[in-house]
Amino acid sequence: MRIDYMNKLIQCIRREGLDGMLICPGEEMEFLTGLRPMFCERFQGLFVKAEGTAFYICNLLYEEELRRQLPPEIPVYPWFDGEVMTERVEAALREQGLLGSRIGVNRDAVAFQILEIMERVNVTFCNAKPLMEEMRIRKSEEELDGLRASAAIVDQVYERVLERIRPGVTELELQNFLLEEMSRLGGESPECIVGVGANSSYPHYCGSEGVIGERDVVLMDYGCTCRGMYSDISRTVFVGEPTDRQREAYELVKRSNEAAEDLVAEGAWIPDIDRKAREVLDEKGYAHTLINRLGHGVGYTIHEAPDIKQSNPRKLERGMAFSIEPGIYLAGSFGIRIEDVVIVNEKGAREVLNRASKELTVL
Amino acid sequence: MRIDYMNKLIQCIRREGLDGMLICPGEEMEFLTGLRPMFCERFQGLFVKAEGTAFYICNLLYEEELRRQLPPEIPVYPWFDGEVMTERVEAALREQGLLGSRIGVNRDAVAFQILEIMERVNVTFCNAKPLMEEMRIRKSEEELDGLRASAAIVDQVYERVLERIRPGVTELELQNFLLEEMSRLGGESPECIVGVGANSSYPHYCGSEGVIGERDVVLMDYGCTCRGMYSDISRTVFVGEPTDRQREAYELVKRSNEAAEDLVAEGAWIPDIDRKAREVLDEKGYAHTLINRLGHGVGYTIHEAPDIKQSNPRKLERGMAFSIEPGIYLAGSFGIRIEDVVIVNEKGAREVLNRASKELTVL
Repeated sequence: MRIDYMNKLIQCIRREGLDGMLICPGEEMEFLTGLRPMFCERFQGLFVKAEGTAFYICNLLYEEELRRQLPPEIPVYPWFDGEVMTERVEAALREQGLLGSRIGVNRDAVAFQILEIMERVNVTFCNAKPLMEEMRIRKSEEELDGLRASAAIVDQVYERVLERIRPGVTELELQNFLLEEMSRLGGESPECIVGVGANSSYPHYCGSEGVIGERDVVLMDYGCTCRGMYSDISRTVFVGEPTDRQREAYELVKRSNEAAEDLVAEGAWIPDIDRKAREVLDEKGYAHTLINRLGHGVGYTIHEAPDIKQSNPRKLERGMAFSIEPGIYLAGSFGIRIEDVVIVNEKGAREVLNRASKELTVL
Repeated sequence: MRIDYMNKLIQCIRREGLDGMLICPGEEMEFLTGLRPMFCERFQGLFVKAEGTAFYICNLLYEEELRRQLPPEIPVYPWFDGEVMTERVEAALREQGLLGSRIGVNRDAVAFQILEIMERVNVTFCNAKPLMEEMRIRKSEEELDGLRASAAIVDQVYERVLERIRPGVTELELQNFLLEEMSRLGGESPECIVGVGANSSYPHYCGSEGVIGERDVVLMDYGCTCRGMYSDISRTVFVGEPTDRQREAYELVKRSNEAAEDLVAEGAWIPDIDRKAREVLDEKGYAHTLINRLGHGVGYTIHEAPDIKQSNPRKLERGMAFSIEPGIYLAGSFGIRIEDVVIVNEKGAREVLNRASKELTVL
């Protein structure tokens, strides 16, 4: 149990006027409690009450493992497959004084379970994903160091993957190389996107069958965790000479990335950063192709607060960590993305964690 | 688009008195539509209306890919990161006449998104996981053939994994072997649990660090898909001579498995099958250690209807497919599980799909 975060969580629950929080298995449960149980279709989760106590509801299948791992003051209420789950949940909530209450749910709660409980038990669940992210939006020095270490891993991998990129290599081969190298360097939960040619034009492309041609664009977006903290980097390189249009797009994205990063500082207005990146792209009329937010927070999860976008009207604060990832996406033709993780560090200054080269690279 | 299933779905929506269904990305969306888009924290899903039409809401990021893959008569409503998602969802639901309506959600919908929409838009979502499973609970001949082919893969893998089991081998090594062999034989989405020694006593154990000792129990539970249909098998073997207690437990679980499977037939009462398996275990007082349902339906997903358990009072029908998996779990000591997939076939007869030996095996 992370006592620091449990105390923060309880404060957040009270500030929001909730009666409690339900944390279902996933990365948030893991950083808060160290637990990472299997999460199948059977409802389970840790309930944290505004008054400061906690209890756990799970299927009987998981009871023994959880009892061994949870502190003894946290009771476990098991339900058995042969019973009706919602009846046992109702009994547990009654015993805990939570009937008629309002309980926030975290990002990992599953809709059909939550709706099934609300349909049969007198309890109201509400979206508390923002609360869980607000609680950790200002990273500690230790967490910032974890982000730095994680960024160093993906930077090292970048140097090495360049040697593998040549005509005839498949997206799958590059994906496997990236995943294995991140693991080899101590990164956990590695993930990646590799898009070649027209596939690079879809920001969340998830195929693996493309093959690098004689003249081609290769977009790589990858990351992993180190000490629980995520890295996230994107680089785009060329095999053979880029066309004039590709070269123009690349230089614009690079300037957009750098101009936005230059604005990062304690007190900077988030929508201004997003706007600046788009203004640069619009020098050549490309802003409309940037079809996503400029960036997302990074930490114990790969996407968390703060989003860097127009609809997030707030200022940057010390300890915030997020990606800056402008792109030009010409659907069906090609895409360019350059992404770093940037933090407002312990001194309130901008620190770009990724050091991998952004110069136009022709292999 | 699977027209047969879309028509079934529309009938189910009407029968339940719903105004529509929301299918979020995952295996159910894939078998229904062929689509498998990335599903990040951004809300997206296919809405199917009771009147028979459909539309899709997604982030702008996914619009191009989805438009290329969806039939042209299905409109796509994109929302942009820089806007407020719920406002665009509200506009889409208004245009589609769904404000004030009641919409079922499938297993893959995420609670925080669904709650966020319900908090801001005049629409009610409800749990429709059972509806989606009822729709496919009686498998077609083609689907039963897929289940047979999938079971044949895991049976073949069983023969080969036995050669790898010896003292000093780790759970991780056996897991990797199982996953690779399933893939090599054409199985997709392979998954497995390997529990050695005391780890075998936790039915959903998810570690990988255990090492096989000189005398040990090895529990393996694994499966994959073939033509979209899942397999699921568990076998438990011994390295060195089992203790008398282990031998007794093994023989009881084997008899329990066979006695339950013998009851499977068109018209059999599901709770009777669960009861029979537990009665056999209770000849030596072990029934209380079987802490889960006796079995679960298997098909396009690994766990679906029908559950084989006391609280599922219905009869078996032609085309149903499910696991039978009794076990004895002595927490912290050892566990035994023997699991097959069984179907009520096209002729209404019982057919045990797994042929891998269940005889007590000492390696």
